[in-house]
Amino acid sequence: MTTVIGTDPAGGRPVVPSRGDRRPLGLNEVTVTGGLWARLQETNASATLAHCERWMERLGWLANFDRVADGTTGPERPGWSFSDSEVYKLIEAMCWEHGRSGAPGLDESIRRLTARVGRAQDADGYLNTCFGHAGRPPRYSDLEEGHELYNTGHLLQAAVARLRTSGADELVDLARRAADHVCEVFATDGICGHPEIEVGLAELGRAMGESRYVEQARRFLDRRGHGTLRDIPLGRAYFQDDVPIREAATFRGHAVRALYLSAAAVDVAVELADDPLLHAIERQWEHAVARRTYLTGGMGSRHQDEGFGEDWELPPDRAYCETCAGVASIMVSWRLHLATGDVRYADLMERTFYNIIATSPRSDGRAFFYANPLHQRTPGTPGDDSAVSPRAEGGSRAAWFDVSCCPTNVARTLASWHTYLASAGERDLTLLQYAPSRITTDLTGGRFAIEVDTAYPDDGAVTIHVLSAPRDPVALRLRVPPWASGAVLDDGGGQREVAPGLVAVGRVFTAGETLRLRLPLAPRFTWPDRRVDAVRGCVAVERGPLVLCAESLDLPGIRLDDVAVSPAGLIERDGQVLAQARAVAGAGSAWPYGPASASGSGDAFELPLVPYHRWAERGPTAMRVWLPVSGGGPPRA
Amino acid sequence: MTTVIGTDPAGGRPVVPSRGDRRPLGLNEVTVTGGLWARLQETNASATLAHCERWMERLGWLANFDRVADGTTGPERPGWSFSDSEVYKLIEAMCWEHGRSGAPGLDESIRRLTARVGRAQDADGYLNTCFGHAGRPPRYSDLEEGHELYNTGHLLQAAVARLRTSGADELVDLARRAADHVCEVFATDGICGHPEIEVGLAELGRAMGESRYVEQARRFLDRRGHGTLRDIPLGRAYFQDDVPIREAATFRGHAVRALYLSAAAVDVAVELADDPLLHAIERQWEHAVARRTYLTGGMGSRHQDEGFGEDWELPPDRAYCETCAGVASIMVSWRLHLATGDVRYADLMERTFYNIIATSPRSDGRAFFYANPLHQRTPGTPGDDSAVSPRAEGGSRAAWFDVSCCPTNVARTLASWHTYLASAGERDLTLLQYAPSRITTDLTGGRFAIEVDTAYPDDGAVTIHVLSAPRDPVALRLRVPPWASGAVLDDGGGQREVAPGLVAVGRVFTAGETLRLRLPLAPRFTWPDRRVDAVRGCVAVERGPLVLCAESLDLPGIRLDDVAVSPAGLIERDGQVLAQARAVAGAGSAWPYGPASASGSGDAFELPLVPYHRWAERGPTAMRVWLPVSGGGPPRA
Repeated sequence: MTTVIGTDPAGGRPVVPSRGDRRPLGLNEVTVTGGLWARLQETNASATLAHCERWMERLGWLANFDRVADGTTGPERPGWSFSDSEVYKLIEAMCWEHGRSGAPGLDESIRRLTARVGRAQDADGYLNTCFGHAGRPPRYSDLEEGHELYNTGHLLQAAVARLRTSGADELVDLARRAADHVCEVFATDGICGHPEIEVGLAELGRAMGESRYVEQARRFLDRRGHGTLRDIPLGRAYFQDDVPIREAATFRGHAVRALYLSAAAVDVAVELADDPLLHAIERQWEHAVARRTYLTGGMGSRHQDEGFGEDWELPPDRAYCETCAGVASIMVSWRLHLATGDVRYADLMERTFYNIIATSPRSDGRAFFYANPLHQRTPGTPGDDSAVSPRAEGGSRAAWFDVSCCPTNVARTLASWHTYLASAGERDLTLLQYAPSRITTDLTGGRFAIEVDTAYPDDGAVTIHVLSAPRDPVALRLRVPPWASGAVLDDGGGQREVAPGLVAVGRVFTAGETLRLRLPLAPRFTWPDRRVDAVRGCVAVERGPLVLCAESLDLPGIRLDDVAVSPAGLIERDGQVLAQARAVAGAGSAWPYGPASASGSGDAFELPLVPYHRWAERGPTAMRVWLPVSGGGPPRA
Repeated sequence: MTTVIGTDPAGGRPVVPSRGDRRPLGLNEVTVTGGLWARLQETNASATLAHCERWMERLGWLANFDRVADGTTGPERPGWSFSDSEVYKLIEAMCWEHGRSGAPGLDESIRRLTARVGRAQDADGYLNTCFGHAGRPPRYSDLEEGHELYNTGHLLQAAVARLRTSGADELVDLARRAADHVCEVFATDGICGHPEIEVGLAELGRAMGESRYVEQARRFLDRRGHGTLRDIPLGRAYFQDDVPIREAATFRGHAVRALYLSAAAVDVAVELADDPLLHAIERQWEHAVARRTYLTGGMGSRHQDEGFGEDWELPPDRAYCETCAGVASIMVSWRLHLATGDVRYADLMERTFYNIIATSPRSDGRAFFYANPLHQRTPGTPGDDSAVSPRAEGGSRAAWFDVSCCPTNVARTLASWHTYLASAGERDLTLLQYAPSRITTDLTGGRFAIEVDTAYPDDGAVTIHVLSAPRDPVALRLRVPPWASGAVLDDGGGQREVAPGLVAVGRVFTAGETLRLRLPLAPRFTWPDRRVDAVRGCVAVERGPLVLCAESLDLPGIRLDDVAVSPAGLIERDGQVLAQARAVAGAGSAWPYGPASASGSGDAFELPLVPYHRWAERGPTAMRVWLPVSGGGPPRA
């Protein structure tokens, strides 16, 4: 709908399709004024960005660029082959944050990091600190695992963020040279084992008005799935080189790879009016969401390959649910929403925001979950904030990881979070997420400005004050989440119940008027489909968009393993959700299989449930989202 | 009890402790005369041994030895660093098979392979085709992953088999030189990332009367657990270098590593009268069997590290249950039985024999399961017998694997299977496993010979004919499996019910008399402990020692995912076990979590159940051991 070349008049947005049902709002159009997401954004700005830069300096990932520039590369090099991408993702996060808050120190940081990166660029545009220099393997000598184009893709995304928030500068120039180099070298063949260049090229193509880049992204997409990458023990599905993307039935293999690739496919489909490609991704999303997605919105069932498992393979204890896969899932869903206008994509985004994105960072913004399991059997050990965690598990947030993709991914997502809050059509503004916020955007007919006042998700009341409105009729549309049966809207003409989906109020609005939406937030039991084998006989509790969990910290004297809940009732007292539970007696035997035996039950007690996104915040703890039900309980068809 | 130096008068046995409660019987003392295990042994002899040699020749794993001998090694080398061990395990299997059947062709094969291996041995005893020669990494330059001592350990086990079945020869000589070399190089420090040298040294020490070797095994054991190996992303628990073996609470980390190490620990504990060490392994076995073992006896819950998971982490679909871990579990349990006389170790061995060892080989002995999951969601693709399988999964037995440890491990276990059938004390013979067989052994007081006539496990009747007996009283003891409540023994003095455990008939026996044991084999429902989260709300069906399963092949028109059984009744008709079942209706929805919904049930039908160890034998199929129960069903305390 809007092709943006140069600075984005909306103040910058991660995705700007030139076609599609919906127009994304920019950093200038939306402000989050309070609540959970404002806190997360502030912590990201004040703590996480500097934290990430400090770690990359400490580990030598930044100095890798200096060594290329100084000609001092050699066989030893700190970091994995994809460490460059962390620098780019940090710069991207700084760009969005700079666009959001205008903090002048950030602009200087971006320039400083850009200068350091830029010195490492070769004359022909190649830019990589792991390959292609003295003592290092040759350029593009390991397409399967080398991550060269993956790194470049993140460079391009950083440049897009810079261009849209501040305009063309050195970062944009060096990204353009890198993109031109990629187009030249990969004109006729070759793909990267880790998709990402595709989405970077597509967005840079949009931001710069360079259709060549979009076309190159299409080439990469269509080359994939024909087994040109070397086979590996995990199989070519790991990097989606098993089946062409237009033919695949579902997301599969390494989850981040699958989702970055799918995000690019939506971009390319939209730019090139390639409806079959768009429909292919819609179908794959539908399949994966119906059968390969956790209650939290998390994706990725296996540690072994950080990948999707088979349909219905959703173990809570070994759930991988990588934070980055949550970021990537949001990238895909947002693009699908913009392309189709369908609100179910925003439903999944809300779930993922509250239960994956908000779960990863510690409240101080200086430690992160990488994997997001739904069951921790034994309390982890306290994280050591001075150490690099070698593993994406353990039950505690870690300051940094050996493979540290998640912190910078969280940072760039939080810095741009408010751009996912709403979308616009020519004559409508659609509220997708609820947070205290101000939104001002120009519709056909004039400026529409609203202020949203809410304590959501703690409270279900959402009050919308109209600050200014076009003279002509427009629609204010509100997303009613699928769980919100019984939601009530007062649009000025009295209260009425509104069904989940989109409710539209279309008329002439006047400054000063107020609309009120009430979303029912009573805690509710949620049952799994009977085919989710790993949680059969269990129930979860949700409250609004929040998945809740039980922590052993709240169970002095009772083992979490011994707790069974009665699905009869939930209590909410002083803002605390409590489930009626009993401790099952019985110590087990030498062999854990045998004839049925009656198991005694201890006294009834009230099991406190807390938001999953804050689990382990109070210290190491065992944790369960899915709670065994006394007596089994009803399955879902 | 018996120290054997040189050829074993009993004809050869895998384990010969010099102390302990029980005496193992040798190849000369036991013959399996028919039934399942005779078939498996015959197929192993007639097909598997040659199959393994052919693959190792084809892939160049045998030629690796020639290249060392010829001085033509270089950077390229086929196979992993542990491929030498496959040759040694094949030789070991050939030795046991030669001892069992006396086939003259085997002796020639052993000599031929030995000569080829021997040419690659360095003057100082070092023998490895991956390290330490031109173009290869230096000796012992990668203790974590290099598998050098692991390879040597398997060489020693092969030599032990040769020595005990045929006497000293070139193979024994070169093993002795290799062992001496290890004792010299590793006198004061160093351990191998993959335990195995320990059990090889302990057994070679016993077989040759060389206490130095046992002492070196003890050193390796005590050095371990202090973090001398490099930390790795999977953690040092992966190779049991996290906690000293005397202090560990349970088996953990990589399952084969943990179990080979534990087998060695029992050997060392027995030889050095180190009761605390023995008790440490007993404790770890108890813990792992109570909380980390599958219904099949399988061990290893994770693909990621081929390892034990946490307590109660026993997913059926992603069960690893590596065939080699089954072999290693038998090594540990057998040693613990011999050391303590406790029959519960034989209980687990039976379970593992019927449901892991017998499961791996295809009926033609030319393809194998590597992992043994208890749930296959979708039918695999048919195995390609001409290809090396890159993966330890997929639902079909594979002719050979990239990491092909399992086929030769199955081969050496099957060739010596009958030596696990019984054990002896000074005045007792104890029958541990039931198969058509003849057993002749010398007790204090004279020769005791029996013939066992049975169709077990198809039929529960076991008839024991006494062929000859000492004049003095001796005991014939029979293991009654833990599931065999209601077993009946007629020991000549009338029928009486006997409880699970050991039943002893102690008196003077006379040639010609007959004892009859009847084990109840009605199929039975088996429930999991309530803490085995992954199979909550499911039940399994067992019949005698056999775990049964449902295969989608038997379900035309019904999806296995849709089947729920009623725990009310099992039917046995014409030798076929059938469970009362219904197909649950309901196609599922776009989001698989929500309020409880009634799910319709289709018509009742009878679900055929087949022995798990034959699953996928008829072709690719979905499969379940744990069957969802309509209504949930009772958990176990």
